[in-house]
Amino acid sequence: MTTGYAFPDLTHLFAPRSMAVIGASEKEHSIGNHAMKNIMEFSDFKGKLYPVNPKQDNVMGLTCFPDVASLPEPVDVILVVIPAKFVREAVEQAGEMGVKFAVILTSGFSEADDWGRAEEAKLVEISQRTGIRIYGPNCPGLVNFNMPLGMSFSPAYRNDIAPGSIALATQGGGLGRNMVQHKDRGVGFTNWASTGNECDLQVADFIHHMAGDPEVKVIGCLIEGFKDGPRFAAACLRAAEMGKPVVGLKVGRSEYGAKAAASHTASITGSAEVNATVFRDLGVIEVDDLDELVDVAQLLARKLPTGDEKIAIFASSGGAASLCADNVGTGGLELATFTPETTQRLADGLPDYAAIGNPVDTTSISISHPDAYRDALLATATDANVGLVLAPLPMDYGNYSVINGESLIAVQAQTDVPIVPIWMSERQGDGYHTLAEGGLTPMRSLRNMRKALRRWIDYGSWLASRDASWRPAVIDAGAGAVDTLTRTLTEIEGKRELAAAGIPAAAPELATTAREAEEIAARMGGPLAMKIVSGQITHKSDAGGVKLNVDVDNSGVIHSEIIANVKSKHPDATLDGVLIEPMAPHGGVEAFVGVARDPVFGHVMTFGLGGIYVEMFQDVTRTMLPVTKAKALQMVNQLKSAKLLTGYRGQPPRDLDALAGLVVKVSDYVAAQSDRVEELDINPVWVGAEGEGVMALDAVIVVKA
Amino acid sequence: MTTGYAFPDLTHLFAPRSMAVIGASEKEHSIGNHAMKNIMEFSDFKGKLYPVNPKQDNVMGLTCFPDVASLPEPVDVILVVIPAKFVREAVEQAGEMGVKFAVILTSGFSEADDWGRAEEAKLVEISQRTGIRIYGPNCPGLVNFNMPLGMSFSPAYRNDIAPGSIALATQGGGLGRNMVQHKDRGVGFTNWASTGNECDLQVADFIHHMAGDPEVKVIGCLIEGFKDGPRFAAACLRAAEMGKPVVGLKVGRSEYGAKAAASHTASITGSAEVNATVFRDLGVIEVDDLDELVDVAQLLARKLPTGDEKIAIFASSGGAASLCADNVGTGGLELATFTPETTQRLADGLPDYAAIGNPVDTTSISISHPDAYRDALLATATDANVGLVLAPLPMDYGNYSVINGESLIAVQAQTDVPIVPIWMSERQGDGYHTLAEGGLTPMRSLRNMRKALRRWIDYGSWLASRDASWRPAVIDAGAGAVDTLTRTLTEIEGKRELAAAGIPAAAPELATTAREAEEIAARMGGPLAMKIVSGQITHKSDAGGVKLNVDVDNSGVIHSEIIANVKSKHPDATLDGVLIEPMAPHGGVEAFVGVARDPVFGHVMTFGLGGIYVEMFQDVTRTMLPVTKAKALQMVNQLKSAKLLTGYRGQPPRDLDALAGLVVKVSDYVAAQSDRVEELDINPVWVGAEGEGVMALDAVIVVKA
Repeated sequence: MTTGYAFPDLTHLFAPRSMAVIGASEKEHSIGNHAMKNIMEFSDFKGKLYPVNPKQDNVMGLTCFPDVASLPEPVDVILVVIPAKFVREAVEQAGEMGVKFAVILTSGFSEADDWGRAEEAKLVEISQRTGIRIYGPNCPGLVNFNMPLGMSFSPAYRNDIAPGSIALATQGGGLGRNMVQHKDRGVGFTNWASTGNECDLQVADFIHHMAGDPEVKVIGCLIEGFKDGPRFAAACLRAAEMGKPVVGLKVGRSEYGAKAAASHTASITGSAEVNATVFRDLGVIEVDDLDELVDVAQLLARKLPTGDEKIAIFASSGGAASLCADNVGTGGLELATFTPETTQRLADGLPDYAAIGNPVDTTSISISHPDAYRDALLATATDANVGLVLAPLPMDYGNYSVINGESLIAVQAQTDVPIVPIWMSERQGDGYHTLAEGGLTPMRSLRNMRKALRRWIDYGSWLASRDASWRPAVIDAGAGAVDTLTRTLTEIEGKRELAAAGIPAAAPELATTAREAEEIAARMGGPLAMKIVSGQITHKSDAGGVKLNVDVDNSGVIHSEIIANVKSKHPDATLDGVLIEPMAPHGGVEAFVGVARDPVFGHVMTFGLGGIYVEMFQDVTRTMLPVTKAKALQMVNQLKSAKLLTGYRGQPPRDLDALAGLVVKVSDYVAAQSDRVEELDINPVWVGAEGEGVMALDAVIVVKA
Repeated sequence: MTTGYAFPDLTHLFAPRSMAVIGASEKEHSIGNHAMKNIMEFSDFKGKLYPVNPKQDNVMGLTCFPDVASLPEPVDVILVVIPAKFVREAVEQAGEMGVKFAVILTSGFSEADDWGRAEEAKLVEISQRTGIRIYGPNCPGLVNFNMPLGMSFSPAYRNDIAPGSIALATQGGGLGRNMVQHKDRGVGFTNWASTGNECDLQVADFIHHMAGDPEVKVIGCLIEGFKDGPRFAAACLRAAEMGKPVVGLKVGRSEYGAKAAASHTASITGSAEVNATVFRDLGVIEVDDLDELVDVAQLLARKLPTGDEKIAIFASSGGAASLCADNVGTGGLELATFTPETTQRLADGLPDYAAIGNPVDTTSISISHPDAYRDALLATATDANVGLVLAPLPMDYGNYSVINGESLIAVQAQTDVPIVPIWMSERQGDGYHTLAEGGLTPMRSLRNMRKALRRWIDYGSWLASRDASWRPAVIDAGAGAVDTLTRTLTEIEGKRELAAAGIPAAAPELATTAREAEEIAARMGGPLAMKIVSGQITHKSDAGGVKLNVDVDNSGVIHSEIIANVKSKHPDATLDGVLIEPMAPHGGVEAFVGVARDPVFGHVMTFGLGGIYVEMFQDVTRTMLPVTKAKALQMVNQLKSAKLLTGYRGQPPRDLDALAGLVVKVSDYVAAQSDRVEELDINPVWVGAEGEGVMALDAVIVVKA
């Protein structure tokens, strides 16, 4: 599906066959020395390595070259750690000789000042001209943990080598390292790209690459701002196609964060609601914090969920068991019901005073009788109804905690149902390290567990219900520009466009005189709605410009009354006339459908019931286009007020089929006019009872002028 | 205010002048040996200590006594670690000789079996007869960290001695130790009571004692179940009076809803909601998890908030600054605006590429120029608009993190504005320990910070708006029994009771015949509401038993119609007649007021708007009684749908004065009939526009039979 979208092949960026370090140095504690050491002493890089430095003859035993142009071959990667003012020349030489990638750690470009912005633009020009792809500038480097290879001058790299199956693409260097340091909890990573200013390569390119990397099971990404929404969408679609979950943290979900991130990265942070919608539609699991990102990613790396997992709690403390069960409950998770066989095995193997339901509380036999504890745990973990076992450990209890940890590890070796310990204590004692080293990655609190498990299971549900044929319109159509001049269609124009697109809409006509009003009214039949039409008047009711339930016979009089009302309140307004249309049938529910163009991700639809439901309860749901009928029905059910549509307190169910049909047609209409339509708001949509249909009663459509 | 409520003096339980260990032993690794060692080797107990053991002559160099009766003096505390079957005799001897407290660690009582339950009842009887107060049984002991003195046989005690100013009263032993182990993060405690089976002393007694202990700044409590709601309320009231915040975690927040009640209000007033209400009314800060409890408690121990604190973010990483700002925003917290003086100092002291707004991003000068970093931090922390400084630290960076930590500690010494580091990395490196030991108690994630800070500031707001004269009715009236026989008043009886209590209510009359209906209708004038009255029919409308807007002239006919409708649907029901009352005025908003008796905390009121607001959005608020007028108005504003009452979209504001008056009168009515009224549901309450008043349109009152 995503073929045809041009993503770069980054294989030799992560695993170069040859490299040069531009700015390599013998000088202890210099950046160029750290970079060389990280490659020569703390990596297992087997390719050719060339130091480049005009002032040194050799570095760490390797012959040094005075400049890039002197290199004996066009290497796969140049790692650039020289001052900003020298960077352009090095990259240009590299591009011209056929080097594939420049990894530029150097700061002082677009994040710094006008000179830096101009210089960065020249780097982009070199990239486009010569084909060299640029990573950075202003970034902490790139790490391949499984080789390992650290292209970084950070002295922290040597402590943070954590091989595994989670790939990280981050825009924040410090925040990326934070996640890598979950190594101490037993979390391992394939590689880590931290893309800095993203003058060329961006997070989306890395997501796409990681999706195709067989070593990668899960992709974690941290986004401060999007450079290219459609590219991000295409990369995430590719990840979904490859069966690789993407876990995402978006900075800028509040005004404070958005402001801070905008000043930090100079990219568009976008609206939090739209980002959340895009993430959900693309299956990107949105998380709230860094530790949550790692928690969710490591759970997914352990096992992909079906969405139907029931939980077992296996504890040695009654309090921890209760508190854990509480978290399962408040997280909306479900405890498993054990089979009679399991219950029997637990009854046989555990003391009388143990709890053998779910939660299981073994009491202190975890220490006194580890064999019985392990048998009971195995019975629990292999119960046909159990999809995951939680083992809350409330405190560090010295060597006893080690014994307990070893039991968990031993049983995990006998089943692929994840056994998830929750190390609730602040003290990271030996038991904690036993679990981390044994591959059981302890969660650090019940709260963290609750949130991560909820995300894990929800991802399973998303996978199960995923429409593999769906492709966001924005990938091919682009987001479109939003800063052009616009024009708002009159209500009559708007409704005619809707009708032409097959969207049920009232068919209004314009009466410029009382006489015309009478003619139109007679033709339509009553009762009628009559509204002033004027480009200058937005609050029609307040101006006395709206009359409802008008008899056919009164239409002329009411026309004159409306004109008089509005003229007295807005003597200078230009009045086009009075709109006349049939009144909506009685007794319906009122919904609304809106579409607006997001500058990053293009058209996004908002759907909900009108008035108080939106204003007091923010009860709306959103989606990227296109919207299928199945998706439209899903959106109804995502509303808290869904019952008002599906049937409530003796009220009949509404015509959901017609409503979903209208939503799909709106989506089609906007897609067909993607460049032209900036914004559309059908509010209200009258929704009749089953079989009665729906009707757009009012519509505001804003188009490019 | 709380004087007169009998709470025990626990001074000599926490700081005994003399003690005996019943079951003391020389035998290595025995429980009795651990208990003795914890006192003699790992405590600083200066009083008299007597080992008691009939089989040993002396223990650890002290003369051993064969039984309690042989002790040379009535000690303050006996610490009991002998098997359950011997406990009663020891406690009885102690009680009879005048020992003040028995701390019983032994298990095998009411938590175990019938024998244990009976035996525990006998301990209670001994306590009541002799005056000895019992702590436990089945508990991990009691610790005074500031002495220190550990009355415990736990080998973990020696590692968990963490002196400080937070007192803990917990019902879960393991969960309590979890919190104590936050010692490793620099959190310190005055004492820890873990009350086990609570056969006598309970958490409430400890909260009351801790409230009066000058060493205690904050009280943390973990509740698995309440033994005595009024006692808990009285203890929390005392803590509020003494200016000691109480932070509470209630286990069992998801197990509720089991108590399905017949009436509407009771069904949405499950115990989890009641506990949350009680906590909020008493100023107990309810938290979701153990680490959150400690986070909030330690912040409060550092400084009591005003509720008006604005936050500064001081970071050395742009990403961490942005993500931290995001958490401030999504937590509903407010960033401070710096004074011009601060901005100038930051501009002067930090490099050009640093961010000097709020968040401050010093960039790497935290390492390269620690002096400039400290100056900037001091400027930030002493800004007149800043109430608290957050310092997010995204990663462990070896010795650089130590330098950074030392800077934070050095500046904190110069201001009492809390500087709160957030150690975001999973790696607890040297920098982390520097902060913990330096008294700056690092938060462990931005999420934890966000939640804790929100609670901290909210407590300040609660303090500021606290009505010190308010005393929950349940303290004096008791919760009352709920298991007695009940009777539901007929609508006519109910409304008459309300009217007699000064609550505006429709004044219905009963028509047993069509002729009576006509007479009543003529007297009342129309339009009228007519409803069937029958003890057997709950869904009156479904049975055709309700007619609205009846003309006076039709009243006789409608009476016959209602009787006929209901008889045809419910041929066997006993029909008392038809209720007639004036129709409610048009155009009001409908609210509801419910009161139900919680078995633990007595009458709790639920208030909200009816129908969809409750059913779809759970938009209700609750309170303990009594309700003052100010509180009633607060409740209106706690609703998400408050605008429907305060004025919305051109709708006039409702008669809040009359509505609050009704709520207060309902509270008074229930308080006056506290023993009799089990449940009351006024639904709907018609709420007119300002000046139009309110009226109870329907009322269900359940009283003791």
